[in-house]
Amino acid sequence: MKKIFLIALSCISLSAGAQNLVKYVKPIIGTQRMGHTYPGATVPYGMVQLSPETDTASYEKDGHYNPDVYKYCAGYQYDDKTIVGFSHTHFSGTGHSDLGDFLIMPSVGPLKLNPGTADKPGSGYRSAFSHANEISEANYYKVKLDDPNVMAEMTTTTRVGFHQYTFPKSDNAHIILDLMAGIYNYPDKNVWTYMRMVNDSTVVGYRSTNGWARTRTLYFAMKFNKPFLQMGYRNYSKREVYGGFWGQFRNTRNFPEIAGRQLRAYFDFKTTEGEKIKIKFALSPVSMDGALANMKAELTGWDFEKVKQDGQAQWEKELHKIVVKSNSKDELEDFYTSMYHAMINPTVYMDVDGSYRGLDQNNHKAEGFTNYTTFSLWDTHRALHPLFNIIDPKRNADMVRSMLAHYDQSPEHMLPVWSNSANENWCMSGYHSVSVIADAIVKGNAEGVDANHALEACVATARHRDYAGIGYYMDIGYIPDEKNGNSVSSTEEYAYDDWCIAQLAKKLNRQDIYDEFYKRSQNYKNVFDPKSGFMHPKLADGTFRKKFDPFTTIGMGFIEGNAWNYTLYVPHDPASLIKLMGGNKHFITYVDSLFSYNLPDKYFAETEDITRDGIIGNYVHGNEPSHHVAYLYDWTDKPWKAQEKIRMILKRMYKPTPDGLGGNDDTGQMSAWYIFSTLGFYPVAPGSDQYAIGSPAINSAEINLPGGKTFAIEVKNQSDKNVFVQKITLNGKVLATPFLTHADIMNGGTMVFEMGAKHK
Amino acid sequence: MKKIFLIALSCISLSAGAQNLVKYVKPIIGTQRMGHTYPGATVPYGMVQLSPETDTASYEKDGHYNPDVYKYCAGYQYDDKTIVGFSHTHFSGTGHSDLGDFLIMPSVGPLKLNPGTADKPGSGYRSAFSHANEISEANYYKVKLDDPNVMAEMTTTTRVGFHQYTFPKSDNAHIILDLMAGIYNYPDKNVWTYMRMVNDSTVVGYRSTNGWARTRTLYFAMKFNKPFLQMGYRNYSKREVYGGFWGQFRNTRNFPEIAGRQLRAYFDFKTTEGEKIKIKFALSPVSMDGALANMKAELTGWDFEKVKQDGQAQWEKELHKIVVKSNSKDELEDFYTSMYHAMINPTVYMDVDGSYRGLDQNNHKAEGFTNYTTFSLWDTHRALHPLFNIIDPKRNADMVRSMLAHYDQSPEHMLPVWSNSANENWCMSGYHSVSVIADAIVKGNAEGVDANHALEACVATARHRDYAGIGYYMDIGYIPDEKNGNSVSSTEEYAYDDWCIAQLAKKLNRQDIYDEFYKRSQNYKNVFDPKSGFMHPKLADGTFRKKFDPFTTIGMGFIEGNAWNYTLYVPHDPASLIKLMGGNKHFITYVDSLFSYNLPDKYFAETEDITRDGIIGNYVHGNEPSHHVAYLYDWTDKPWKAQEKIRMILKRMYKPTPDGLGGNDDTGQMSAWYIFSTLGFYPVAPGSDQYAIGSPAINSAEINLPGGKTFAIEVKNQSDKNVFVQKITLNGKVLATPFLTHADIMNGGTMVFEMGAKHK
Repeated sequence: MKKIFLIALSCISLSAGAQNLVKYVKPIIGTQRMGHTYPGATVPYGMVQLSPETDTASYEKDGHYNPDVYKYCAGYQYDDKTIVGFSHTHFSGTGHSDLGDFLIMPSVGPLKLNPGTADKPGSGYRSAFSHANEISEANYYKVKLDDPNVMAEMTTTTRVGFHQYTFPKSDNAHIILDLMAGIYNYPDKNVWTYMRMVNDSTVVGYRSTNGWARTRTLYFAMKFNKPFLQMGYRNYSKREVYGGFWGQFRNTRNFPEIAGRQLRAYFDFKTTEGEKIKIKFALSPVSMDGALANMKAELTGWDFEKVKQDGQAQWEKELHKIVVKSNSKDELEDFYTSMYHAMINPTVYMDVDGSYRGLDQNNHKAEGFTNYTTFSLWDTHRALHPLFNIIDPKRNADMVRSMLAHYDQSPEHMLPVWSNSANENWCMSGYHSVSVIADAIVKGNAEGVDANHALEACVATARHRDYAGIGYYMDIGYIPDEKNGNSVSSTEEYAYDDWCIAQLAKKLNRQDIYDEFYKRSQNYKNVFDPKSGFMHPKLADGTFRKKFDPFTTIGMGFIEGNAWNYTLYVPHDPASLIKLMGGNKHFITYVDSLFSYNLPDKYFAETEDITRDGIIGNYVHGNEPSHHVAYLYDWTDKPWKAQEKIRMILKRMYKPTPDGLGGNDDTGQMSAWYIFSTLGFYPVAPGSDQYAIGSPAINSAEINLPGGKTFAIEVKNQSDKNVFVQKITLNGKVLATPFLTHADIMNGGTMVFEMGAKHK
Repeated sequence: MKKIFLIALSCISLSAGAQNLVKYVKPIIGTQRMGHTYPGATVPYGMVQLSPETDTASYEKDGHYNPDVYKYCAGYQYDDKTIVGFSHTHFSGTGHSDLGDFLIMPSVGPLKLNPGTADKPGSGYRSAFSHANEISEANYYKVKLDDPNVMAEMTTTTRVGFHQYTFPKSDNAHIILDLMAGIYNYPDKNVWTYMRMVNDSTVVGYRSTNGWARTRTLYFAMKFNKPFLQMGYRNYSKREVYGGFWGQFRNTRNFPEIAGRQLRAYFDFKTTEGEKIKIKFALSPVSMDGALANMKAELTGWDFEKVKQDGQAQWEKELHKIVVKSNSKDELEDFYTSMYHAMINPTVYMDVDGSYRGLDQNNHKAEGFTNYTTFSLWDTHRALHPLFNIIDPKRNADMVRSMLAHYDQSPEHMLPVWSNSANENWCMSGYHSVSVIADAIVKGNAEGVDANHALEACVATARHRDYAGIGYYMDIGYIPDEKNGNSVSSTEEYAYDDWCIAQLAKKLNRQDIYDEFYKRSQNYKNVFDPKSGFMHPKLADGTFRKKFDPFTTIGMGFIEGNAWNYTLYVPHDPASLIKLMGGNKHFITYVDSLFSYNLPDKYFAETEDITRDGIIGNYVHGNEPSHHVAYLYDWTDKPWKAQEKIRMILKRMYKPTPDGLGGNDDTGQMSAWYIFSTLGFYPVAPGSDQYAIGSPAINSAEINLPGGKTFAIEVKNQSDKNVFVQKITLNGKVLATPFLTHADIMNGGTMVFEMGAKHK
């Protein structure tokens, strides 16, 4: 009976597929200005993200940091007029980058191996393009390259990029493979590159870089749908010494191997009018053989349309995990593009046989789980992983297992902070892995995770005295301002993280650890200055710093936020915070002021990662530390203020346009906030099983839970004006408080919101 | 019965071990001037060759090639007064180098991370030493380092170097690990280095270099016998960008990982008087985990003396394969040091589990054989591999399998020319792998080798038109002088190699291939100019070049030899050569003149790899192309002239002193010549089963053949004066011609030479 039920369900799922949610995905959203998303092709969590670069700004300019590089975190800026090429790896929405590996570009006519500059048409292999000739869909990107008159199309599987270039008739057509190109490039970023011709249509190789990832190697296998007439390369580095005997060979063209620091290769073809040159380009974190095996496993044949459709079907399946109804196409586009952006990172990081490179720079095999990388945890612990805990807990559990593997392999014996491609870059602050881990285990979602090992990893991480002030924090309960630039925000973050560890310890009946970390979780109180009324930098001698400005970020003890915002960062204990700050009334005034006080321009210059649009008053939605703030009204006697603010943020911060994201999407955290908030609730404190109620912005939603249950949300009388919750029933019973539990959702059922224009 | 017999044999072998042949091994022979051997510790064919460096000359000086670097091919020059440190990889006797990986040096007092210079005592970590305080044995090296007053001792297993440093009392003792140091170093040779602290006494890492091997990575694991107090490092490169978040950690000291281009690390200790700091240092061609596994498998515990003795027992076993008797200790030292030098290269190149890096830069597993690298085939095909074919055919078969694996993985689809560490450097000329392969298969010694695959590899290599003139050679029967700098010598070498392929084809009943390559083997005739009487550079138009000088090497169409020597390079067909050159009488006069004509100094300046002592008249023993020449008299009516010349060469070219080798030992080829010639016969044309008789220089010899048979050589009445063979009997039957077959030896038996002062 059960079996039949499951089959029936999967049929439903397929027929639901016919609804075509993919059509609402607009990857172009966020590609203008600060969103730092990319318009190219990828499957959910794909290892390959195949996308155009519109420039390749260098990290250094005249020996100094080049601020322009920041614009190109995702390689693509909507306002640019030329495309340099199509590379295979991209972060989605980050504020730093590292990737852009293996840039491919078609060209016609005399060979140009330099990209040239945008202001000098024809100065290199780059080409003009226009958005009129551009299509960007989930797992499909198409653009006409005006200069060579080549139509470029791309799609992907998890580990393979599939290029299709429609050429004009030419005796002089080329595919360029630029192994020097990269995002956040600098002259010495390439440590080493290697290329080997397997046969007249297959090439393999690798590239090692020193960048944000200190020591990263990525392997590739590249296959053409027809033999190249010849291949060649140029090494732009003069540093190599090969000894004297390589001259034994007559040809440098078609010579089957090359190694060096700065390589560009080309492949020559004759093409007929409209002829399609197709390329399969597989990646591997461990070896060239691995890349070939990945290609063989995932992409046989040359049917571009089928690969595109298969990938879009994968997206369709993922998008169907939440089926929303709305009268507004814009809202559907915002919602499903948010779903899309939420399901790009973390990325699969292993070969089809489970092999991956570990943090210890050894190769490992993932046994019984899929290994992931690209953990932007300072961002994503807030709402992205909690979202996975509802719609894809098995995958989230594998992410936790990947984090534990990271811990096991980490030279510092720490869980990931911001990890990518077998490297830790320690970006941002805190040790928020523990939030993700505790959230999964507390919610009973950690299938295959050794919970005791997880607790051990959390504790070891949190006791790592040498890391960013933890020693001081453990000794005196806060980080002295003299000792660390983020003394206040890190103290607060550690306190929240420690609370997560305490929750995990409780779940595992480890009272000793619970006591230790519950005590630590109260440390936020040590940096609250009742005099200033803010979380406030505190000196080693126990006094609060005199020089203080609650609007300033830089030099004030906080990271990506100021005291005004960070004072509210006690997600695990809002009730105590309210008490600490003087009670309900003062607290409400305080939060109100956050949204109403217009931050003077001189302060705005200090903020990072956001546009002017990413800010509301002094509330910075474009950065993460205040993502929970609007929901804090739920702990006061005026939860309707949460509803009001949330709807305002949704309207102002998300638009279905290229400039529709007011700040970096941060590998999906901004999108996850959108998804939760649109549905009407939000995980203020991951690690608890509680969600705070907001104001749903759709007409209805069905969350298709793993195991086949459905959690339905009906929203009656909702509109841009009717943003206030009048009444909520859960399975017919009135919800007395503005809170929901994880079990309420996962058990399935129906939640009905009744909305109105006036707050209750 | 058979079993019992074998056990009995192995007992005999052990009791023979008691003879202590190891005591005759003097690794110091050849360390002065041109021998390019090293005095350090290694086991037979060991992956680790742990030996002192007396200088680290750079390949470049002021932007140009630094000829000084050549002196330091093996890292050690006997005349130097200081030691820089002890590194783990060395070529033995080569004329080019690449290695010197992972240099370790103890020091005491203020830390100095630079080696300093020899002329400024105390300017760095290097130390004065004297030969009076130095002991160099097989698998054991000891030296007192005067500056820190530390006694350094080292020994090895196949994959692990074992250091033992006896310190004075010090609160400030250090072990330096210099990852920048290297032999044939240059500023950009280090591509990347990585180091990771596993615990307070264990470190792992790797180093990637671009040198003679274009793209080589070697991994290590290093373990101390007691915890270091702290460790630290310095990166001397300024090219690395690590992003901004590594400052999260308080300590750079004891920080557990570092990556960069130019690293030196140090480990601090407190030592008591006479305390021994011991280090186990394992290598792996594939991974740090592999290095740790190699250490675990080969070297548990810290018993230095036992490891030394185990290694010396291995040598004892190898040396016992030929037990000679001589009245002269000098001769025994020459003989057993030659045996020692002959059994260093090729080296094992795989982990204990069989993993190794292939030519395709992928990792592979050697299934059913031991994988070897360091093939200096232009040298070693002549006598070293033929020697293995007698005393260690199974090992030689594994070398052939390693060569075939190389072929399978080679981007150029060619057999090795000069290969090392997953790289081909194409050094020298010819494709002499085919000689080694044919020799093994023709002699029936290629256990486990797929002979048909071997033939395919030989043929593919020999038909590789793009390689060093083969296309011309195939089309017109010689390489035109305009097209290749070694046009004449390569034409001759190809002809010999092709004859080897023909022999292999014959053995495998491939008449078609036999015909093709037998025809090619006659091509040497195309470059013989009857007018000049020499092998002579020939132009594409078929005429011989006008500008010609038979004494000149450079620019005359030959490699490491002149026309006078190379005219005699037809090892596979001396009889035809004699006819070609005008018959018996003229030929004898010609060869005589080779030994008697004193090459004027102006020509000597052109020769490579040899000292003035490496030359007799115009006969250059210090290079290989004439190694067979003295034996060519056996094809004339005056074989006694061979006997005379060989004894002259033995006396003049080999001495048991640091300067005892007149030229590069060339990974054992010079030594193999010594061994054969001392025994009284030589493989003029490997690929045939024939040995030419010379003049044995010992009193007796027992060759302990694999399988238990013995081939005994008795030499009656031999002395420095009695160098002429009067009579030879083989198992009691008189030998009618000055030739012996492989079967004569391998069947076992007794050969008796009767010697006298007058030639017959």
